[in-house]
Amino acid sequence: MNKELFEEIISNINKNNGLTKKTSERLVNNLIIDKFALDNFVKQLNLIKENISICSICNYYEIESKCIICSDESRNQNVICVVASQLDVNNIEKINKYKGLYHVLGSEINLNKKKSPSEINFESLLSRIDKNSELILALNATFEGELTTNYIYQLTKNLNINITRIAKGIPMGGSLDYMDETTLESAFKNRKKYEV
Amino acid sequence: MNKELFEEIISNINKNNGLTKKTSERLVNNLIIDKFALDNFVKQLNLIKENISICSICNYYEIESKCIICSDESRNQNVICVVASQLDVNNIEKINKYKGLYHVLGSEINLNKKKSPSEINFESLLSRIDKNSELILALNATFEGELTTNYIYQLTKNLNINITRIAKGIPMGGSLDYMDETTLESAFKNRKKYEV
Repeated sequence: MNKELFEEIISNINKNNGLTKKTSERLVNNLIIDKFALDNFVKQLNLIKENISICSICNYYEIESKCIICSDESRNQNVICVVASQLDVNNIEKINKYKGLYHVLGSEINLNKKKSPSEINFESLLSRIDKNSELILALNATFEGELTTNYIYQLTKNLNINITRIAKGIPMGGSLDYMDETTLESAFKNRKKYEV
Repeated sequence: MNKELFEEIISNINKNNGLTKKTSERLVNNLIIDKFALDNFVKQLNLIKENISICSICNYYEIESKCIICSDESRNQNVICVVASQLDVNNIEKINKYKGLYHVLGSEINLNKKKSPSEINFESLLSRIDKNSELILALNATFEGELTTNYIYQLTKNLNINITRIAKGIPMGGSLDYMDETTLESAFKNRKKYEV
């Protein structure tokens, strides 16, 4: 009897980012009972393997050897938005407003997860900056994000370029009475003249 | 530019039971940035394909052509616990108390999802019942579960066998003030003599 094989498959699938134990179990169950779904899944993985890689300039996706962002000449080549993950690029692209380039760090500085500054390739970001560059720091509003934002600021503050970071404040739909103090403080500090 | 390929892969992965759009995006992102994870995922899918199938008797998993449950002769061969999905078997097996057989229906009667009684193979359940059988109905405590429980009861009530269903009541950790009326009613109706 080999129930271990089943457990082993679940535990291996579970190692992937974003999948909980429960999700992995449901996924594996679905793939066992539906052979068509299984074949389709294998097909998708092969599509990824054969067609998608990581851009050597900005670390976003390269599809069929062309970065979706870097190869788009209509984008402002001087503005670089720094984010932690490719998923953040996907999210920002959805609003369809930002028309500059990106730089995906791949990770934020996180001492608990042994991600010291030396583990993150900041050099590749610095090498893209010239006197006309503008940096938009769009890291997470977490301790790790703040740390990384500050680190990049220290690295670049003497380059005499325009550096901004995205606003912190009350998210759309947020109730004031549920906001923590830091968010409220940021929201007050960053208040803007009300115009209709 | 072929951003569509990326969207298409997400949408195909997303078709799997249990995966949300967000989970699919994170999973695909993980598989793009980590080639080792991608190869490992393909390996797991091949393990499923080559080693795991569905038992023709009870519809649970057959690993290396042997059903984990049916081939276990130490189990009580007269008791059949009827559940909706293989995942329910996994969950019941975790408590390690039930030592009978199972019958996985694969689905409950669900008219919204076009699952009429004729779409579900009740015959294979009936064919397993003889005069010594005992049925434990362990379907979900949902409208569909009630409907299916009732349907099986109607099919089997004249067979003169012992048919029980699992208790409905307050789940462990549940607060009375959060319970809906039906649950409370069941809990009162099914109350038992308190013994220490």
